[in-house]
Amino acid sequence: MSDRINRREMFKLATAGAAGAGLYKGLAEWGLMPAWASQAADLSRNLASVYESLGRWILLAPQKLGGGTHAVDLSTGKGLAWISYWNYGDTCPISHHVAAYPSDDPYKGFEFVNSTQGGENVLIYGIPTRIKEMGILDKYGQGNHIYRVRFNGQQMELVEDISETTGIGLGVHTVIYPDAKGFSCSDGQKDVAAFFDRAQGNGKTKVQMAFRTDWVPNNSDSLERCWQEGGTLRLTRLVEPKETGKYELEGTSGNKINWEMAPMAELLVERGQIPGRSPHTLVGLDATIHHPGNRYSVLINRLAAAAVIVDRTTWEPVACLHTPEGSPGNLPVKKVASGPDVWEVKFEDVKCPAHEAGFSPDGKHFTMMNNLRQNNMPIFDTSDEDPRNWKKTVFVKDPTWTGEYPSPFHLCFSMDGSKMFVSVLSPKPASSGSVAVDTRSWKIIKKFDNIGPDCQTMSVTYDGKHGLQIYSGFQRMGCGFFVYRQDTLEPVGFLPNYGGHHDSVIVPTAVEHLRNSRCTTL
Amino acid sequence: MSDRINRREMFKLATAGAAGAGLYKGLAEWGLMPAWASQAADLSRNLASVYESLGRWILLAPQKLGGGTHAVDLSTGKGLAWISYWNYGDTCPISHHVAAYPSDDPYKGFEFVNSTQGGENVLIYGIPTRIKEMGILDKYGQGNHIYRVRFNGQQMELVEDISETTGIGLGVHTVIYPDAKGFSCSDGQKDVAAFFDRAQGNGKTKVQMAFRTDWVPNNSDSLERCWQEGGTLRLTRLVEPKETGKYELEGTSGNKINWEMAPMAELLVERGQIPGRSPHTLVGLDATIHHPGNRYSVLINRLAAAAVIVDRTTWEPVACLHTPEGSPGNLPVKKVASGPDVWEVKFEDVKCPAHEAGFSPDGKHFTMMNNLRQNNMPIFDTSDEDPRNWKKTVFVKDPTWTGEYPSPFHLCFSMDGSKMFVSVLSPKPASSGSVAVDTRSWKIIKKFDNIGPDCQTMSVTYDGKHGLQIYSGFQRMGCGFFVYRQDTLEPVGFLPNYGGHHDSVIVPTAVEHLRNSRCTTL
Repeated sequence: MSDRINRREMFKLATAGAAGAGLYKGLAEWGLMPAWASQAADLSRNLASVYESLGRWILLAPQKLGGGTHAVDLSTGKGLAWISYWNYGDTCPISHHVAAYPSDDPYKGFEFVNSTQGGENVLIYGIPTRIKEMGILDKYGQGNHIYRVRFNGQQMELVEDISETTGIGLGVHTVIYPDAKGFSCSDGQKDVAAFFDRAQGNGKTKVQMAFRTDWVPNNSDSLERCWQEGGTLRLTRLVEPKETGKYELEGTSGNKINWEMAPMAELLVERGQIPGRSPHTLVGLDATIHHPGNRYSVLINRLAAAAVIVDRTTWEPVACLHTPEGSPGNLPVKKVASGPDVWEVKFEDVKCPAHEAGFSPDGKHFTMMNNLRQNNMPIFDTSDEDPRNWKKTVFVKDPTWTGEYPSPFHLCFSMDGSKMFVSVLSPKPASSGSVAVDTRSWKIIKKFDNIGPDCQTMSVTYDGKHGLQIYSGFQRMGCGFFVYRQDTLEPVGFLPNYGGHHDSVIVPTAVEHLRNSRCTTL
Repeated sequence: MSDRINRREMFKLATAGAAGAGLYKGLAEWGLMPAWASQAADLSRNLASVYESLGRWILLAPQKLGGGTHAVDLSTGKGLAWISYWNYGDTCPISHHVAAYPSDDPYKGFEFVNSTQGGENVLIYGIPTRIKEMGILDKYGQGNHIYRVRFNGQQMELVEDISETTGIGLGVHTVIYPDAKGFSCSDGQKDVAAFFDRAQGNGKTKVQMAFRTDWVPNNSDSLERCWQEGGTLRLTRLVEPKETGKYELEGTSGNKINWEMAPMAELLVERGQIPGRSPHTLVGLDATIHHPGNRYSVLINRLAAAAVIVDRTTWEPVACLHTPEGSPGNLPVKKVASGPDVWEVKFEDVKCPAHEAGFSPDGKHFTMMNNLRQNNMPIFDTSDEDPRNWKKTVFVKDPTWTGEYPSPFHLCFSMDGSKMFVSVLSPKPASSGSVAVDTRSWKIIKKFDNIGPDCQTMSVTYDGKHGLQIYSGFQRMGCGFFVYRQDTLEPVGFLPNYGGHHDSVIVPTAVEHLRNSRCTTL
């Protein structure tokens, strides 16, 4: 038998590392191994084969309080390039969310947009710092930059601060259009969402459209009852100041609250525990996502649990999905003023706040997380051409999702659309997990428990093979990413990734990949 | 045969990843595999076994322009904790060098000291930044902090800024004493080295002693000839201001040059290309190291190629090693004044600047890199009890070490002392490498070429198994660490590590480990 195991196979075994060596030992005892093989099998613990199986994909991850963004080549395990925004004079660079444009060969170059928070957001993680008292948050530390960054094949280059170009500073989700011809960005402290074109090379980005949402409560006497007892969501089209050609929304300008509602922190607003200029008008418009059909975008309003559907061909809202269980799923949107344009949506009540959201890659389903008062994921049938006919159908639930935690958090879909991956958050300092949901039955079919503290977004390799769950440790704690198979849901393992990651995206190599990237889901 | 491969062995194979799967295929074809094994072998590409072989060690790496420091658990591939210094109001936190105190169980807690640079050092990497014009380097961006940081088993805590406590701000090598009872730190812009005790818990660090070195050239008419034509190295004991109890050396105070001499940048000073208050008195005292016997410390003076040996029991200098080939190896030190104490060393010429240095773990050998004009490593026999008898003996050379590059750079030793590992720097953006030198013959016995851009320090696992070479990419470019076997010198592979790493150290779990840590070598 032994002569049938050739040198090449032995080399493979040798490169398989400790476990390979273990097996080698077994085979040696059974007399299956030639003598020369012994040394190689003992010596070499080459990681290369492990990386090879992950494929040629580049993972991009912003570091939040780490202050920069990293690119890692999954096929080699090597850090490819990185950027740190304080190098450019940003004194509170909370590198928050990223989205990457497709690139035929991202190893030769690609471009991404990276929002940052700033100001008092640095104070909400229990770090004993005097940064505010030192005055460092006042001027260059206000944050809300939208950086456009290019990897040039060798290093990262800061190409443009879109907030400086346009006067619109927003600090949360950056989301690329399905056709890669622009992106949107939002901010839940300002309740502003803006849509931008894609600047070419060293050109400057232009604003296509911007909206603000505001809440007018039925009960204006009680912050505590402000949202629960219903009210009116007003959507206002923002207009550009004529003389300057720039909006006046940079830095902390326009903030209704002094720091963001952290994940699962919506009720702090009701309790008056997040100070600011105008918490009672807050809806928490901190994200937009795009239907893969490339016509409709969704404005996510957390405190109203409302997804306002905007037609990007007319720049008008057409419908409003409402997510709590027991509430109507689709509310009418009515235009009430022009100059500037204002639309309204009426809510009898808001049974529960909602947060992260996404479309399936075929565009036939939409979901958004009901958190805190309910703890489930409503599934909307969005297969109809007219968003006014989109319907809430079933709910993804789990017996352990009771009370405020554990809470379904971020989501993404497998490349074949057969599974929805959901990160499930546990409170600090506990470890969070991830689950896979079957998209026919909308039942949880696999759980990855105890991945690490603070599981945030997921990303998938566009070859359909792997899913990646980043975890960030509520800042300063454990961090990394966990890899599993998209098809079989087998765990692969952990890879180091440093910093307080809050997001992750794999650079698409084709426009179609955006259907499973930071475009359709958060 | 097939029934002799049991389920446990199959599991090992399965967890060995792609290569294991490859071998599995082979074995299956030979009829050696039971049917149930197929699925497991195909599915699981578990990295766990690879990490397991690296062992329970924590690697600590400062990010330089990344602005923080990371700890990774090598046994799991997980980021354990991290810190980012801008969070604390440091607006130019170039996280430069680290040294870790031993801890019985570093997973439960350990402490490290982390120097930072600041000021104009951020400008020397070709980053198009206006940080200086914005005034951000003026006040809180001067750098030269010496942070004492504790990992508390869950997260990193900034315990003390030793520069604020003592008034001594230094930005380069932090080096722990062999008995772990204190550390020293230095700065090559100020030519100051200071020795500190080890504060307990939340106590404050005290200065044990501090020195400054200055150059008095023979030819004071020409900066170009200032060092080459010889001169006098003056060593001055610094004294603490009585009324304030604090030195006045924080931030940029005391800088002779406005930014550091980067590696292999010594000749820029001769050419007048590094501006500052007093380049003509510069010697570049940017490091100290300690003889493992715990009595003698070495002050490294780059431009004089001089290693001044200080007796820490008397706090007096006793000898001065001079490193260039063709120059005397041991020069007398003469006391010339007291109040404050001043000692002098005379140099007929300086044939070549020198840089990083280290002792072998048994204390019998010392080396220091001759760079730029010569390109070799002199080996000193330091086995005599009296440093005045330490002798330059042989040189480590390589046929490719001609001209300025490639240059031997950092060094460390295998646990058994049989090998010296040396990083070999190539200029940006080329990849650098690493070599292993036999410590009997002082010949290079292995080369790892093309590891990555900007190979910096190495560290060894204290079980004698692995060596780690960190590379940082000259900021913003590729980064990571490369692992090889200390014993067989077989390559193991790469692991991701993000940021502009300039240093790395494995947290010691016993005081003896310091002989192979950031204590005896740089």
